[in-house]
Amino acid sequence: MAVYRPPEGRVSNPHVPLGERRDGPFYGKSIISVRQFSREDLDYVFGVAREMREMVSRIGSFDLLKGKILANLFYEPSTRTASSFYAAMERLGGSVIPINEVHYSSVSKGESLPDTIRTLECYADAIVLRHPQVGAAAQAVEVAKKPIINAGDGVGEHPTQALLDLFTVSSELERVDGLTITMLGDLKFGRTVHSLARLLALYDVRINFVSPDILRMPRELVAELEAHEVTLTEHDRLEPVLAETDVLYVTRVQKERFEDPAVYESVRGCYVITPETLRGAKERMIVMHPLPRVGEIAMAVDDDPRAAYFRQMENGMYVRMAVLAMVLGKA
Amino acid sequence: MAVYRPPEGRVSNPHVPLGERRDGPFYGKSIISVRQFSREDLDYVFGVAREMREMVSRIGSFDLLKGKILANLFYEPSTRTASSFYAAMERLGGSVIPINEVHYSSVSKGESLPDTIRTLECYADAIVLRHPQVGAAAQAVEVAKKPIINAGDGVGEHPTQALLDLFTVSSELERVDGLTITMLGDLKFGRTVHSLARLLALYDVRINFVSPDILRMPRELVAELEAHEVTLTEHDRLEPVLAETDVLYVTRVQKERFEDPAVYESVRGCYVITPETLRGAKERMIVMHPLPRVGEIAMAVDDDPRAAYFRQMENGMYVRMAVLAMVLGKA
Amino acid sequence: MAVYRPPEGRVSNPHVPLGERRDGPFYGKSIISVRQFSREDLDYVFGVAREMREMVSRIGSFDLLKGKILANLFYEPSTRTASSFYAAMERLGGSVIPINEVHYSSVSKGESLPDTIRTLECYADAIVLRHPQVGAAAQAVEVAKKPIINAGDGVGEHPTQALLDLFTVSSELERVDGLTITMLGDLKFGRTVHSLARLLALYDVRINFVSPDILRMPRELVAELEAHEVTLTEHDRLEPVLAETDVLYVTRVQKERFEDPAVYESVRGCYVITPETLRGAKERMIVMHPLPRVGEIAMAVDDDPRAAYFRQMENGMYVRMAVLAMVLGKA
Repeated sequence: MAVYRPPEGRVSNPHVPLGERRDGPFYGKSIISVRQFSREDLDYVFGVAREMREMVSRIGSFDLLKGKILANLFYEPSTRTASSFYAAMERLGGSVIPINEVHYSSVSKGESLPDTIRTLECYADAIVLRHPQVGAAAQAVEVAKKPIINAGDGVGEHPTQALLDLFTVSSELERVDGLTITMLGDLKFGRTVHSLARLLALYDVRINFVSPDILRMPRELVAELEAHEVTLTEHDRLEPVLAETDVLYVTRVQKERFEDPAVYESVRGCYVITPETLRGAKERMIVMHPLPRVGEIAMAVDDDPRAAYFRQMENGMYVRMAVLAMVLGKA
Repeated sequence: MAVYRPPEGRVSNPHVPLGERRDGPFYGKSIISVRQFSREDLDYVFGVAREMREMVSRIGSFDLLKGKILANLFYEPSTRTASSFYAAMERLGGSVIPINEVHYSSVSKGESLPDTIRTLECYADAIVLRHPQVGAAAQAVEVAKKPIINAGDGVGEHPTQALLDLFTVSSELERVDGLTITMLGDLKFGRTVHSLARLLALYDVRINFVSPDILRMPRELVAELEAHEVTLTEHDRLEPVLAETDVLYVTRVQKERFEDPAVYESVRGCYVITPETLRGAKERMIVMHPLPRVGEIAMAVDDDPRAAYFRQMENGMYVRMAVLAMVLGKA
Repeated sequence: MAVYRPPEGRVSNPHVPLGERRDGPFYGKSIISVRQFSREDLDYVFGVAREMREMVSRIGSFDLLKGKILANLFYEPSTRTASSFYAAMERLGGSVIPINEVHYSSVSKGESLPDTIRTLECYADAIVLRHPQVGAAAQAVEVAKKPIINAGDGVGEHPTQALLDLFTVSSELERVDGLTITMLGDLKFGRTVHSLARLLALYDVRINFVSPDILRMPRELVAELEAHEVTLTEHDRLEPVLAETDVLYVTRVQKERFEDPAVYESVRGCYVITPETLRGAKERMIVMHPLPRVGEIAMAVDDDPRAAYFRQMENGMYVRMAVLAMVLGKA
C-alpha cells in the first residue's frame, strides 16, 4: 500500500476568540492541496463529513459556526463550487460574503492578490479562493493570517473536490481498499482525476485509465503513482475494464482538444455512458462525474441506482461543512 | 361568478427534517402558475401574508425559517424580484444563496437546466427560478424533489407577482368582489396583466382593458375570461372608464412595439397618468403599477394617497414571505 | 482650533418596531457627508467603534442587529467597501441584500434612482449606496424614509472612509490634536484626502500637502481649511516635511492625469514609499493608504510596524459597524 508523507500543513495564527477550541489537526490551517492529507487525516475528515450528513438529515442546519464569516472569493465563476461552500457555511449557522465580480473590482484596477487577501482577512474568518492561475492559493497562503481554502487554481488543485470524490466512493461502497477505479475521458487536462488519483494512492486500489491517446494521464503523474506501488493499467476503450470496475469516474472529452475533428468524431462514442453501457457493469458499482456534464452521460442513466453523481454533489456540501468546521476550530 | 378548477399542484417529496410540519395545502409544492390557486387558496395565502405584514410591523424579522436555505437562481437580472425574495427569506430567519451570474457559469458551458436544478437542490431547501424561456419553471419541476417557485419564465407566468397584485387590491380596498378593475397600457405582451386577469376571474368583478389597438389583450385570454363569465369591456382610451374605476393597473407602452413611430407618438399621451388624470377618478380608488415605471406615471402622482404602487412593492415581500413559509411547511 | 458647524443632519422617520431605541444622535439619520459631524459626534462614533473592535476581538460576532436587513446597493463595483459593510452587518447579526449588478437590472431599463431607493426601502432597514454621480446620495435621501449611507458618490464624498481614516489616526497615535499630517500624491482628484482634510479641520493639527504641481489640493478647499485656521503648507517633494510627519497619508498618482508622460516619469519616484523613505521618518509615526495601492508603497514596507494601512482596513469594519448600529438605533 502506498502512503504519502504529507508536507507539514502551514499553520497560521489567527486571532482565537474566547471559547474557541484550538484542537483538531486542521485548526487554523489552510487547505491547499490533496498532498496535505494522510490516510488518517482522510478518516478524520470523512468522519466529520458523515456527522455533518447526519445532522443535516436530522435538523437541516445548526449553529456550529454562528458568528463566523466566510469570504467566497471567486476570480472566475463557478456556480456549483461557490453555491456548495455558501450552503455549507450557512447550514453551519455562519455567514458568507460573496465576491463574484472581482473582474470588475479593485482587482482589475491592478491590485495584487496578496493585498486583496490581506484586506479580506480583515473582515472574514476564512477565505475560499477560486483563481485561474496555478499557484494562486499558495501565494495567498504566503501572506494570510487566516485559513485559505483552495477552490481551484487553474489546472492546479481543487482539493475539496478530490475529498468529496473519495468520500463518495467510501460512502457508496463502504470501503476504498480493494476497489477497482476506472477513470474515463480527458485524463490529461482534468485536474479532478489527477487529485483523486493522488488520494487513491494512499489506499490499496487498482486504477484503470481510459482515454483517447492524446488525452492520456501525464507521464509524471503515472510515474508518481507507480512509485507508490499503485496497480495501474491504461486503455483507449472502456470495454476491457468495465466488468471489473467498482467506480467509473467519467470526465468530459472536449472537442477543442483535438487538432483533427475526424479523430474526435471517431472516439467520442466510446466515452458516452448510456444505459446500454451499464449492462456490462457490476450490479454494485457506481458512476461518478464532477459535473457539469455535457453529453458524457445520457440522462437516461440518471434513474439507474448506480448513477451516483447527484449524491456526489450532495456529498460536496457535507465535505465542505467538515472542512470549514475543522479549519475554524469547531469540528 | 367564475371559478377556476386549479389542476392538482405537483407535490414533491422533499426530505422532511425532524419537527417539520407536513400540513398546509402548499407544503412541499412548487408554485408555477396562478392556475394552481382556487379562491380558497387565495384566502389562505392572503391570510398568511397579512400575518407576515403584522409580524414585520411589530418585530421586523423572526425565526420561522431559521436554518432553511433558499437558492435564488436568476438566469436574467431582476433586482426587484430577487431583492424581494431575498428580504422575504431573511425576515423569516432563513438564508439565501444568490446565483445571479448564471450567464457566466456552468450554464454557459452548456449545462442543462435540469442538471442545475438537481445540483442546487442538493444544497438548498427551495429554489426561486427566473428564466427567460417560457416553460422553464415547469421543466425544473419535472426533475425537482424540492419546491420550485417560478419568479418569471419569459412571457409565461410570474405567479407571485399576480398574488401580490391581488393581495394589494384586497388590502387597499378591503374586498375584491364588486370592484371595477381597469388595466391600461401594453396588454398584449404584459405577463403581469395576463396573470392578474386570470386570478380576477375567480371573483365577481368587472374588468376594463384599455390599450392601443395593436397592444390589445390576446383573443384567447379574452375568450378564456368570458368563458368564466367575467364582465369585460375593451377601449383605446382611459377616459370613458376612469370614473367607474376602483383599481387602475398601469403598464408600460414600449415604443419598440410600434412599427410606425408616428402611431406611438399619437397614443403615448393617453397612457401617462398625471395628477390631472386622477381628478376624474374616484376618491377611493388605487393606482397600481408592477414597476419599474419609465414615465407612465408622473412622479407628481406619488404623493396622492391613491398612488398604491410602492405599497404594492412592500406587499410583494409579505406575499413572498407567505409563499416561502407555506412551501417550506411552516405557515 | 477650527470647528465646523455641521448642518442639521436629515432625520427620516422610519417605522420603529417594538423595543427599538430611538435615542442616540444618529438614530434614523442618513450619513451623507463628513460635514454632518461635529467633534463631539466624532468622539461618539469612535467610542462606539472602539467598543465594536473590543467585541469582535472577544467574541467575533454578536446579535445587536439581528433581524435587521441592509441593502448594499452598488452602482459601481467596490469589493473593498462592499465587503466591509457586508462583514460589518453580519458581525452585528444582521443580514445583507447584495445588489451589485444594477447595471444589468431595472436600472438599465431606465428606472430612476429615487424609484429604486423607494423600492429597496420596502424590503430593507437601511441602504448603503455607491453611485458614480456626485449628489446621488443626497438625491436618494430626498425620497428615502429609511437611512441612506453614502459609500461614495463619484468625486463627491465617501464619509465612512474619512471616519475610518481619522479613527485610525486616533487609535494608532492616541490623539489627533497636535499631530502633523502629511498627505501625499494626487490631492486634486482624491476624494479621500478632501474629506479627511475637512474632518481634520475640527482639530488642532498641522497639515502638509505634497503633490505634483498639476495635482495640488483644490484652491477652494485650501481656502476653506484656512478659514478654519488650519496650519497648512504645500510642497512638491516629501523630503522637507517627512521628519516632522506623524501621519503620512499616501494616495495614488495616476499616469493618466499627466498630459506629458515625461513629466509623470520625472515625478513618480518622489511618490513611492520604500523602506529607505521611512529611514527619514519618526520612530512613532504611521503610513496610511486608502487602498488599493498600485506601487505607491513598496511591499517591503508592509513589515514595518509603522505600516498602518492594513490595520486601517480593519478599522473600516469597526467604524461601519458603529455607523450601522447608530443609524439603526442600537448603539
